Amino acid sequence: MHFADPLILQSGESIADYSLMYETYGTLNADKSNAVLVCHALNASHHVAGVYADNSNKIGWWDNMVGPGKTLDTDRFFVIGINNLGSCFGSTGPMHTNPQTGKPYGADFPVVTVEDWVNAQARLIAALGITQLAAVMGGSLGGMQALSWSMLYPDRVRNCVVIAATDKLSAQNIAFNDVARQAILTDPDFHGGDFYAHGVVPKRGLTVARMIGHITYLSNDVMAEKFGRELRTGKYQYDFGVDFEIESYLRYQGEKFSEYFDANTYLLITKALDYFDPAASHGGDLAKAFENVTARFLLVSFTTDWRFSPECSRAVVQALLQSRRDVTYAEVDAPHGHDAFLLDDVRYHKLLRAWYDRVYDDIATRVQVEVKA
Amino acid sequence: MHFADPLILQSGESIADYSLMYETYGTLNADKSNAVLVCHALNASHHVAGVYADNSNKIGWWDNMVGPGKTLDTDRFFVIGINNLGSCFGSTGPMHTNPQTGKPYGADFPVVTVEDWVNAQARLIAALGITQLAAVMGGSLGGMQALSWSMLYPDRVRNCVVIAATDKLSAQNIAFNDVARQAILTDPDFHGGDFYAHGVVPKRGLTVARMIGHITYLSNDVMAEKFGRELRTGKYQYDFGVDFEIESYLRYQGEKFSEYFDANTYLLITKALDYFDPAASHGGDLAKAFENVTARFLLVSFTTDWRFSPECSRAVVQALLQSRRDVTYAEVDAPHGHDAFLLDDVRYHKLLRAWYDRVYDDIATRVQVEVKA
Repeated sequence: MHFADPLILQSGESIADYSLMYETYGTLNADKSNAVLVCHALNASHHVAGVYADNSNKIGWWDNMVGPGKTLDTDRFFVIGINNLGSCFGSTGPMHTNPQTGKPYGADFPVVTVEDWVNAQARLIAALGITQLAAVMGGSLGGMQALSWSMLYPDRVRNCVVIAATDKLSAQNIAFNDVARQAILTDPDFHGGDFYAHGVVPKRGLTVARMIGHITYLSNDVMAEKFGRELRTGKYQYDFGVDFEIESYLRYQGEKFSEYFDANTYLLITKALDYFDPAASHGGDLAKAFENVTARFLLVSFTTDWRFSPECSRAVVQALLQSRRDVTYAEVDAPHGHDAFLLDDVRYHKLLRAWYDRVYDDIATRVQVEVKA
Repeated sequence: MHFADPLILQSGESIADYSLMYETYGTLNADKSNAVLVCHALNASHHVAGVYADNSNKIGWWDNMVGPGKTLDTDRFFVIGINNLGSCFGSTGPMHTNPQTGKPYGADFPVVTVEDWVNAQARLIAALGITQLAAVMGGSLGGMQALSWSMLYPDRVRNCVVIAATDKLSAQNIAFNDVARQAILTDPDFHGGDFYAHGVVPKRGLTVARMIGHITYLSNDVMAEKFGRELRTGKYQYDFGVDFEIESYLRYQGEKFSEYFDANTYLLITKALDYFDPAASHGGDLAKAFENVTARFLLVSFTTDWRFSPECSRAVVQALLQSRRDVTYAEVDAPHGHDAFLLDDVRYHKLLRAWYDRVYDDIATRVQVEVKA
């Protein structure tokens, strides 16, 4: 969807003219009350579920969650996936032409925040004729967008599902992001963000960045169980090639990532993560930030998630309770670390299914009430 | 000290001719029974304590621990610090000339293990005329060397002090090391390890490697307390320079490190960490690895150390108990993470002081017994 009106950003800059790539699943009902927006995390996109007719390999990133008869049931809900501004999967981003220069934006693409993304998404939702979303849902950075929606557009969010997220990154979180950024920024092939013109990609930096990220997505336990000290050839090589399976796995993940992900996008998205802190404009009081919020909340965390640990979710729950909001919270005892939010844990999916049953009943009840009236 | 006899390494390779840089503090007593070997961790050296007459800025890395009247009292003990083979502070390492080629070893310096280091150290200790060390002591990688000493030279170690260490790295530990190595190996200025000939240093890789390492040395809590989300200028910059204090701190640490540390040494030392696993040659049974050990052990861990967590030390203690060794274990409730072993925590130092009192009494008693006999 193309937007001709400029979008004023949190930084004060603006984007004059932009497009958002989106996908929908299921059918919007007559009163447009069954729409669920699914927000994506760092390296994902609008392609939330299913496969394309011409490419059956490219499965949506939350396909175990979203689909006909699935946890978020597209026979009941109209699900929307939007690729965020500055990302590299179709929405306007650093590799697109800057209308002011006629060249790719590169490092000149303005720094966007979670709030900027939500404002851009809100325009798309409005253009679809939806005045209130049945739910906004996301995991990790996606959960931060869901939180932000509840604050920026309280009237337009009926339910808010925030999974494995936080209201603000810790110093350690920021540290990991900054090391990843430094790996990219100092890669000679980055060329100050203008690598497109040089026909190269900062592969080394992106690989290292992804390896670092990946370590923080997995729990120590699951890494120990999946890889342990397993050697690739059964013995030490006494060189700096691959000795351990974990090395092979991480390097592979890093290299794969460097082949499809844009380096400027990586910088932008980690910055959006670092900057998110809705309590900051309320003197650090998160409860105050929730004062005008009306959505019902579901928060989920995973016990072994050390990127955004249960403590982070508990702090959000505390603030919601303090401002007397309707909140349900579950701490799922899952071994997989941060990645658990993308996996098919039975208790986690059961919980969400029950939650969406309530959301659906609520829609049906409202429709009946309106028919009666 | 120069060694002309070749040292056969665990890999099967050998080093024909090498030197070890060492320092001593205090006086070796008449029967040479008061010697304590202090083994160093990743980026440290033989310079354990004090300052040099001509350079009062270069304080030893464990100066709060070792010195006259200090916890490890050099009025009582003869303390030895040795720079390990392959390091970059004077002992034979990658920047030295390979006698076979007449050029710097670079990447051709053989991969050395903790066991290789201990074998090299043992020669130096023997050359000093010391048949039994009153104690071997180390933190982190230094603790692994102490453990290894107790197994490889059971008759030569009377006490073994192992702080914030582990008997083997976890998959997560290895993962962090490998990302750091990849950052160095893929830096174009690394030149396959021969950067000396090119007059450059892989600064970018070393900086990123050190930043990653540094994150794992600090606890989440201490990072939150010291830096939190503190901004350097009080507001977001909306670029990829420094926003947060933690970024400034880590980049500074990384750059400083890249100016004095050798990249090949970094690769070697992280490999030695990854390879250490004394139970492996005993079918994974650590208790069996301790079967011939005679030293008395003190193990210390720190509650917030997530690099080598208390669980790691507990596993070693369990194995020692299982093989009926004499072991004392303390888990110190310190906020500083892995770095705590280098800091001046009162309870930690009190404990070590009491331990060394016992070691000293034991020496004195033995001397008396010998005099009587």
